[in-house]
Amino acid sequence: MKIVSLLFLFISCSFSSIAQSTKGIEDSLKLRTVFDMALLNGQAYNWLDHLSNEIGPRLSGSSNAQRAVEYTKKELEKLGLDSVWLQPVMVPKWVRGAKEYAYVESTPGSTRDINITALGGSVATPNGGTKAEVLEVQGIEDLERYGEEQVKGKIVFYNRPMRADLINTFEAYGGCVDQRYSGAAEAAKYGAVGVIVRSLNLRLDDFPHTGTMSYGELPVSQRIPAAAISTNDAEYLSGLLKIQKDIKLYFKLNSEQFQDVLSYNVIGEITGSEFPEEIIVVGGHLDSWDLGDGSHDDGAGVVQSMEVLRLLKEIGLKPKRSIRVVLFMNEENGLRGGNKYAEVAKEKNENHIFALESDAGGFTPRGFSFEADDAQFAQITSWNELFKPYLIHQFDRGGSGADIGPLRGGTTVLAGLRPDSQRYFDHHHSDNDTFEHINKRELELGAATMTSLIYLVDKYGIKGIPVDREPKF
Amino acid sequence: MKIVSLLFLFISCSFSSIAQSTKGIEDSLKLRTVFDMALLNGQAYNWLDHLSNEIGPRLSGSSNAQRAVEYTKKELEKLGLDSVWLQPVMVPKWVRGAKEYAYVESTPGSTRDINITALGGSVATPNGGTKAEVLEVQGIEDLERYGEEQVKGKIVFYNRPMRADLINTFEAYGGCVDQRYSGAAEAAKYGAVGVIVRSLNLRLDDFPHTGTMSYGELPVSQRIPAAAISTNDAEYLSGLLKIQKDIKLYFKLNSEQFQDVLSYNVIGEITGSEFPEEIIVVGGHLDSWDLGDGSHDDGAGVVQSMEVLRLLKEIGLKPKRSIRVVLFMNEENGLRGGNKYAEVAKEKNENHIFALESDAGGFTPRGFSFEADDAQFAQITSWNELFKPYLIHQFDRGGSGADIGPLRGGTTVLAGLRPDSQRYFDHHHSDNDTFEHINKRELELGAATMTSLIYLVDKYGIKGIPVDREPKF
Repeated sequence: MKIVSLLFLFISCSFSSIAQSTKGIEDSLKLRTVFDMALLNGQAYNWLDHLSNEIGPRLSGSSNAQRAVEYTKKELEKLGLDSVWLQPVMVPKWVRGAKEYAYVESTPGSTRDINITALGGSVATPNGGTKAEVLEVQGIEDLERYGEEQVKGKIVFYNRPMRADLINTFEAYGGCVDQRYSGAAEAAKYGAVGVIVRSLNLRLDDFPHTGTMSYGELPVSQRIPAAAISTNDAEYLSGLLKIQKDIKLYFKLNSEQFQDVLSYNVIGEITGSEFPEEIIVVGGHLDSWDLGDGSHDDGAGVVQSMEVLRLLKEIGLKPKRSIRVVLFMNEENGLRGGNKYAEVAKEKNENHIFALESDAGGFTPRGFSFEADDAQFAQITSWNELFKPYLIHQFDRGGSGADIGPLRGGTTVLAGLRPDSQRYFDHHHSDNDTFEHINKRELELGAATMTSLIYLVDKYGIKGIPVDREPKF
Repeated sequence: MKIVSLLFLFISCSFSSIAQSTKGIEDSLKLRTVFDMALLNGQAYNWLDHLSNEIGPRLSGSSNAQRAVEYTKKELEKLGLDSVWLQPVMVPKWVRGAKEYAYVESTPGSTRDINITALGGSVATPNGGTKAEVLEVQGIEDLERYGEEQVKGKIVFYNRPMRADLINTFEAYGGCVDQRYSGAAEAAKYGAVGVIVRSLNLRLDDFPHTGTMSYGELPVSQRIPAAAISTNDAEYLSGLLKIQKDIKLYFKLNSEQFQDVLSYNVIGEITGSEFPEEIIVVGGHLDSWDLGDGSHDDGAGVVQSMEVLRLLKEIGLKPKRSIRVVLFMNEENGLRGGNKYAEVAKEKNENHIFALESDAGGFTPRGFSFEADDAQFAQITSWNELFKPYLIHQFDRGGSGADIGPLRGGTTVLAGLRPDSQRYFDHHHSDNDTFEHINKRELELGAATMTSLIYLVDKYGIKGIPVDREPKF
């Protein structure tokens, strides 16, 4: 009996290996086709060329953002998807106005210009600008130590740099972004008249990097202007303050917040042939900051997501599940698009089994990070081997993407593409985020990597969702 | 008895795991220190800044190459190594002369300029330049098909592009480089008057890429001029030839080959404390082409190799074995430095157990490839886990580096650093290989990755070499 059992076990194992390996070969060939098509005849780079060079930066509420909506909808319509539509969403409209200006005055009449940019959401300075002494701090927690006595009437200068020893630069970003996001609201409570923040950039250069900030519950009358200065200027200013405490900084911001305006998420779908109610989303965000042209953040994610659906069509896939590309509006300063999409999905009682976002730059893809339960993560990592010929090794647990975050809950698996992160913050939210810094192959490899994952999710479904039920028809 | 054996086995396994894991923790902490030091206080980027921006391109036999020898020797001397010396080597001296010029003439008087550069080693065109009809081919093997009848008197245009579907771009390079290296020698046999080659670049742009070529055994009198044109111009020319076969190409090269001159490999060593006769080499090549400033090829490898020894000193390592940095001269057009180093090593009966080269650009490191026997490769891959926190996954078998190649043989393990290869050929051998395309963090991560491997090789030795013998003293 024992021997029979063992024999049986042996036979079943062999059968299952054969079955697995046949499936494995089929999937492996499919992925090779996807990568070949992306690299030999990809569309992503051409789309991004148009988005970056013909349209340009796409801040929410701007006419460029509207042009991007129209352009991507038109391009999706050319792909022969089952449906393409716009999802209305009201978005904030913040406008930078005239270019900012700043200088440091060490003695009256002796000044040096500073590279500065208003943070998104900041109020303007008074008409004549703001000029005051500077208090350098290493973070919000320093404010309490200095107290109102030393903060009042000053410009607070947040200068905690991103940690260079962290391999994942997004982790370094996460360790500093509170200065930019909440620095002004906190400093205002101590009577500061303005805030400048060291740009969230690991490199020393002259580009100031913008990004969203919030005054929280602070009454309008107490809001103070907030801006970022370049890392080189942050180093300069910090050095100067070490030898002369009473220098003054002047800065002038001309920004203005308008009423919310109507904009759109752009959505395209291939409807599933077997389980059309199981929805798989792939997306990026269509809006960008108003500096540079938003090529890495997040033009790359937009065109890669569009390319996923094009490639799936191109390989002749008739997906079992419904696959949607969603180009979200207003990730940068409101997340209104992501929230709206999830809100509508909930209203319609839609079943999202999987969502993948690309919003970490168009660099060489290294893998994905997943928000998934243990069984789901085990299922997904069983596919890892298929990606290794393309030098994709990272299948980690971790954050996914801001726009798909509102879909979190239930059995929905969320995933984020993880490109190589070393160069990302050289470009992020600055005049240095331009098309010339996109490498065509890296962009295409990202699109192929995403397509491969979506192909597997469609084919095998996701654990926690009933995958073996009968087709509906 | 059986139970006792099992118990014994269990105990030994446990002990060995504990020992292993303690070692593992020790190594893991050591690698973390290496990466921290490289990222927080690295020298590689400053050295490269000097090499690229103060010295510039360093073609063998040029005064810049000599300045690079003197500069790197001086910098190595500052590190407090046990010895630093110059190893004399005679190198070829080929000089480009005045900038090349080329145009396409579709009808007499109607011309368009072409971006062109002489291949390294090419003879000049006659004084008045060379002008002839163009025969486009997809490779050397096409020549036989066309025969002397169609080749004679023409300029042969080698236009086989690099394959975009290969993930490793060096493989794509390997599939095309014969056109550049041997194209002129072969075409001359069929009576061609000159050769132009599509630049070895995966991107479409305006940079012509040079590189070494050889006339083989061809008598001097039969040598024909050879140059590379940009990928954009290759596409243009090929398109034009499809509609008009009798267009003419004019080109003028002004290059000249001089007598060999004296140059040097630059070498520094930390002498081993236990097995000084076991030598570990880490290196890159000091020479570059004369276009751009040679930052990626191979300034990066030079400064990373120097950084390995600096970091080992910095972490307080007293290596058991002798660790040498070798900055090889003349990799690009002769390999004289690599050959000389191996020749001297052989004369002195030196025992090289391991050699690592960095000569694939200063991009994010992905791993290494090794020339090693099975046991050695198994030993080395057992270290792979230690590198994963730094997103280093590739431990493959494969080529190492040209300069260390002459050390091949016996039990010597050869290794090559494998950075991300996607962008490399955008820069390689062209005016686009400049310091601004180096990312400081990527360069430093490469140096830390190399240092980590050298640390492990020194600590554990290499299989095939008697690693457990007693110290000598």
